Amino acid sequence: MSDLTISLDPASAVPLYEQIYQHIKKEIQNGGLPFGKKLPSTRNLADYLQVSRTTADMAYSQLVSEGYIEAVPCRGYFVCELEGLYCPGPEKEKRKPPKEREERQYRYDFSPSGVDLNSFPHGAWRKLSKNILMDDNKKFFQLGDPQGEYELRCTIADYLHQARGVLAEPEQIVVGAGNDFLLLLLCSMFGTGQTIAMESPTYRKAYDLLRNLSNEIRVVKMDESGMRIDSLEASGADIAYVMPSHQFPLGIVMPVGRRMQLLEWAAKSERRFIIEDDYDSEFRYRGKPIPALQGFDREGKVIYIGTFSKSIAPAIRVSYLVLPERLMELYRQRGRMISSTVSRVDQLLIAGFLDGGYYERHLNKMRAVYKSRHDVLLEKLRRFHEICRISGENAGVHILLTFENGMTEQEAIDRAAGEDVHVYGLSRYYIGEVRQSRTVILGYANVPEREICAAAGRLEKAWL
Amino acid sequence: MSDLTISLDPASAVPLYEQIYQHIKKEIQNGGLPFGKKLPSTRNLADYLQVSRTTADMAYSQLVSEGYIEAVPCRGYFVCELEGLYCPGPEKEKRKPPKEREERQYRYDFSPSGVDLNSFPHGAWRKLSKNILMDDNKKFFQLGDPQGEYELRCTIADYLHQARGVLAEPEQIVVGAGNDFLLLLLCSMFGTGQTIAMESPTYRKAYDLLRNLSNEIRVVKMDESGMRIDSLEASGADIAYVMPSHQFPLGIVMPVGRRMQLLEWAAKSERRFIIEDDYDSEFRYRGKPIPALQGFDREGKVIYIGTFSKSIAPAIRVSYLVLPERLMELYRQRGRMISSTVSRVDQLLIAGFLDGGYYERHLNKMRAVYKSRHDVLLEKLRRFHEICRISGENAGVHILLTFENGMTEQEAIDRAAGEDVHVYGLSRYYIGEVRQSRTVILGYANVPEREICAAAGRLEKAWL
Repeated sequence: MSDLTISLDPASAVPLYEQIYQHIKKEIQNGGLPFGKKLPSTRNLADYLQVSRTTADMAYSQLVSEGYIEAVPCRGYFVCELEGLYCPGPEKEKRKPPKEREERQYRYDFSPSGVDLNSFPHGAWRKLSKNILMDDNKKFFQLGDPQGEYELRCTIADYLHQARGVLAEPEQIVVGAGNDFLLLLLCSMFGTGQTIAMESPTYRKAYDLLRNLSNEIRVVKMDESGMRIDSLEASGADIAYVMPSHQFPLGIVMPVGRRMQLLEWAAKSERRFIIEDDYDSEFRYRGKPIPALQGFDREGKVIYIGTFSKSIAPAIRVSYLVLPERLMELYRQRGRMISSTVSRVDQLLIAGFLDGGYYERHLNKMRAVYKSRHDVLLEKLRRFHEICRISGENAGVHILLTFENGMTEQEAIDRAAGEDVHVYGLSRYYIGEVRQSRTVILGYANVPEREICAAAGRLEKAWL
Repeated sequence: MSDLTISLDPASAVPLYEQIYQHIKKEIQNGGLPFGKKLPSTRNLADYLQVSRTTADMAYSQLVSEGYIEAVPCRGYFVCELEGLYCPGPEKEKRKPPKEREERQYRYDFSPSGVDLNSFPHGAWRKLSKNILMDDNKKFFQLGDPQGEYELRCTIADYLHQARGVLAEPEQIVVGAGNDFLLLLLCSMFGTGQTIAMESPTYRKAYDLLRNLSNEIRVVKMDESGMRIDSLEASGADIAYVMPSHQFPLGIVMPVGRRMQLLEWAAKSERRFIIEDDYDSEFRYRGKPIPALQGFDREGKVIYIGTFSKSIAPAIRVSYLVLPERLMELYRQRGRMISSTVSRVDQLLIAGFLDGGYYERHLNKMRAVYKSRHDVLLEKLRRFHEICRISGENAGVHILLTFENGMTEQEAIDRAAGEDVHVYGLSRYYIGEVRQSRTVILGYANVPEREICAAAGRLEKAWL
């Protein structure tokens, strides 16, 4: 029994049975207790170690359940063969992540892709998560519906109807882990080699992704109402990718008249569809909100994409498609084979977040936070009126400054950098031909009000 | 102040300030308190409602933070314009999910895709989840690395090295929401129109997915060692999709010699690669485990896919790719643009599950559970030795019975169904030409031992 001389620590937080289990397991793993070796009875072990019989029983039953020892009736406990058992090796030194390519850190950074997370409702999130896991519900760990949990799809359908005028049954909604995945899914459904119309400048990531999947991208001209229909018609594209609520990056809100023309374009051919990316429609400061394009669609031509990345948090990884009824058969044939990419627990968490009214509160709070930053920024930028024009200020979390005094984008960026302020050039969002740009973008989602004031002072020094 | 006649319930679980907030919010939403209306001072409101000044303050500050009212210095509180605020409509009736196509329920179901969730470690999962969310760490809700959290990739690299002999740096690992997504990602990297060699029978979902993405699938012959190299060479394919540890559904373990030939085949051309799907290598009952094919690869030709779906739970949605170094540049150019599909919280949860030793315990426990079901099933099937041959019994959670008495697959299924036992035909996994099959599959992951005994008795009645 010398292998079983275990120095037990009754004062330890680790229960005694666990200490015994750990010791015997290690002895078996390192060969001290070889295959076939008989162990003492629980009574003998308990006597030897001066612990209760129950403690010895618990240690043995843990070892049996994990396959280290087996109980042979009327004969006792024996060490099992280890082959096939997973025994981790000695712990390795923790690796350090490789140094990222050093990116310059600026004192003030007007990144257009920021999201303010200071107001993230940690308490509510934790409570909802706890409640879901409390149930010990086996169901949550079985594979769910590839389209997403029906409960969540109902909640999304109701929200979209009330907030965005989107008309959708839960049966038309597909939940997925982010917009990128949903675009992959769409491409998988449509098959590659589609001709897709996009604006320039546009959301580059969507462009890179769609082009990458062997689609042909046709750049279509824009005017102050967004994508031009004559140019779209001439492009020969079958699918138009648009952001009618708030074009990224220009911030154009497509007026109702143009929306109708877009729908008419789509209605002219069976093959034509519109992808409506409604990425940040939640934040609007001026003018009556226009319902989503999808809400005007009578012919089943609009594929709507929405996300919780901007409105809750980027790492949430929950987005959704609303497919027109006429595409459901295609989805069933070519999309449903892809298992859901969001865990059921996360799906139920989001459903609880919306149903419990937390989303409403959070959205309105974030809107108030962003609006006051927006107002402060616009107020501070008034002194630039003589040298530039401001646009894209009615919605979203960034604005554009177009210089009218001859300053180029690059000059503006460099001069701002000289004052340790990071502003972003519009030209990075162009596809195809890049014209000489005189426009910079200022995102304010992640810059608190007092920093906006200080940064505006520096920009004045840089630009005026 | 009549709009503010609020019937407060001091006995309610809802705090008084929340009751006041809710009431005023509703009045603003339904127009009872219109845009621009001045509200009483907090002192007056507190007097009127007979609550403390603090309570009134808290109610107002909640309303301010969500954008319902604003504080104008020296003048007081005023109702804001509602446009742009999200105000949910009246609650709708809960929808009921549509009735699924009625599938026959069997008394005993030997589904080959089952996973036993009775042993799911709910307690550990809950604890880890709670600890992660406890931190209120903003970082967890910012967008993470598209490849996955470095911490999790280190953990996976260590695990794969110890358990599977896989040689991988964290830099080569890409975490994604399920194998289906990872295959989509690979196709997006390679571009469509690849020629891919697959066995028949095989994992149908991978076949459907790869074909769907406009790849050309070439069916390659198999023998008792798995994919035949002469047939692979003749197929003209550039990519071979194999499951060397445990071919699905045949259960063939590819011997080392064939593995070497496969690697030699790949080394002959720059364009050739091997996709090693190691979907259920965790469960092995006989013979020394063979390390993954990836561990033998010196030329950087193997793309390894692993998953926690089988070993933890299907709804976890965490899988991973190990890319050879030579494909990393391709990944950076064509794969990294796709944001991570797994939330950071879930990634840290899995990392904690592995690092904390929970995974080791869970794996060994599940192996013990499955092994005892496996042993009982094989023992009970001994009486069928005269009419059929058993195969695929050394690993995984299913076995195959091939009838040698002339009974066809369909006859065997029908007769079993007559005894209310569901067994599955091999032919459903064939691609291309389906030969007359005399083989059925019995998955035992989800059938407890006592049910296995009862079901075996019924199969005896059906088949003998």
